[in-house]
Amino acid sequence: MPINAQILDNPKSDRVRRIADLARAKGRERSGRFLIEGPQAVREAVTWRPDVVQDLYVEVSQALEHPRIISSTLEKIVDKSQDATIYVHQCTGEVIRHISKDAQGILAVGNARAMHTDVEDVELQENPQIAAFWQVRDPGNAGTVIRAADAAGCDAVIFVDDCVDQLNPKVIRSTVGSLFHIPVLQMGTEEFFSWAADQHVDVWAADVYGTKERKPESLPQVLADTAAVASGKAVLFGNEARGLEPEILEQCQRIISIPLYGKAESLNLGTSAAVMLMSLAMSGHIETM
Amino acid sequence: MPINAQILDNPKSDRVRRIADLARAKGRERSGRFLIEGPQAVREAVTWRPDVVQDLYVEVSQALEHPRIISSTLEKIVDKSQDATIYVHQCTGEVIRHISKDAQGILAVGNARAMHTDVEDVELQENPQIAAFWQVRDPGNAGTVIRAADAAGCDAVIFVDDCVDQLNPKVIRSTVGSLFHIPVLQMGTEEFFSWAADQHVDVWAADVYGTKERKPESLPQVLADTAAVASGKAVLFGNEARGLEPEILEQCQRIISIPLYGKAESLNLGTSAAVMLMSLAMSGHIETM
Repeated sequence: MPINAQILDNPKSDRVRRIADLARAKGRERSGRFLIEGPQAVREAVTWRPDVVQDLYVEVSQALEHPRIISSTLEKIVDKSQDATIYVHQCTGEVIRHISKDAQGILAVGNARAMHTDVEDVELQENPQIAAFWQVRDPGNAGTVIRAADAAGCDAVIFVDDCVDQLNPKVIRSTVGSLFHIPVLQMGTEEFFSWAADQHVDVWAADVYGTKERKPESLPQVLADTAAVASGKAVLFGNEARGLEPEILEQCQRIISIPLYGKAESLNLGTSAAVMLMSLAMSGHIETM
Repeated sequence: MPINAQILDNPKSDRVRRIADLARAKGRERSGRFLIEGPQAVREAVTWRPDVVQDLYVEVSQALEHPRIISSTLEKIVDKSQDATIYVHQCTGEVIRHISKDAQGILAVGNARAMHTDVEDVELQENPQIAAFWQVRDPGNAGTVIRAADAAGCDAVIFVDDCVDQLNPKVIRSTVGSLFHIPVLQMGTEEFFSWAADQHVDVWAADVYGTKERKPESLPQVLADTAAVASGKAVLFGNEARGLEPEILEQCQRIISIPLYGKAESLNLGTSAAVMLMSLAMSGHIETM
């Protein structure tokens, strides 16, 4: 698709200002667009979700007679984008850096509505593996857990209740492209539990403390239970600071904690999600290898 | 032990300048001391390694007739420190914040030499589990992997070849206290392999690619092998960007990779270490539960 011949060289232009504004929630709301920064995220977006990407902004050098994209890595991404209807805009380094410090020469603008996944649109496999997160507030954590769910081959990620905006640029950077690999849904707490019931998937709480009545089971015991490992489930992780509330734990079919063998008192949310989702995935794959 | 009655209130004093200087490698070299920031790290240092802690700096409020430590959390840490020979200095908030933005009201100064673990001093259990890291350069990663090794109940951490200084404040913050739970050794590459041979522990490389002659084994296969899981071993992880070099892989008894089940291309070093060390630890504990 078209490469615009004109080189954007004015960091103070209205267009540049509007794009830079997508780093803020208000800018994204106003325009219905969002920002994808850096070669890795842009490459994954162009490869897996070209329907979402509207415009590509790439840094060119004007040292020679004709403007040239500054590296072969970026050239390949631009080539790839030509298979889809993506407009490519050549920019000076100053313009790119003005939009984002994390661009490393390339940026894309995506359509937020196209990125939105409706619960009805998600096709689940038999015995689906879902990663769910309740009230994740930190963008870096949100990105890390999406990446872990992708690595573990989960069918979908669900952000439950009031979570950080998945189109926050820091979330997208932290997913290292995984946001474009796996559907990410938003649901309220009640909606989540009734959806899980409709889909006949159990909800497993990842929680250290459990409730008064129910102490958590230890993850290694659960990993040894091949039927449980193979069953369809949504593993629900709590807020970074507060974990899961008792009323939520009561609605979960199982409560499972990661054992700590040394003197460490805890693992952070991203590490907990990676350890639990990956160890369940690996246990599920031992027999089929 | 003594609580100094005088309140440090001059952020420009020589003492304050010298402490703040411990954030830099040169300041640590010059003085042989290092900085421990924030309630969690200071509490763990005072609890597990009181021999290392020399001075405690705590924020007091002067709003009442007598100066008061600003919170009960900090008071408990100071109380705990009184069991050991640790000097406590009361400071204004301005002084504390001048030394470190990450202090949250409390700082400690430790003795670098006391913190140094000699290889001869480490007493290994039968079938020890060691976590080793070659050329880790990022302080956040170094802290995260020490925390993961602690959580997995490893006997020791070994930083091999040219790694980030473990007494860098960002490393200490990222360990969330684990630096004071588990011995952390430094070795050259040759020294590491000959030490492992002397101890009769195999070295397992955590590596995605392997060498031309040797493709990596998949972690779930290894987890299913109870004898291997129970055996003494040092799991060696590579540099964040370059992994492990072929000459190093050739010296390892096994090469093991973490499988990726989705479309994610990689896991970062901290996540890889947590997934591999924790899944080995959990597999080793299934039978004994």
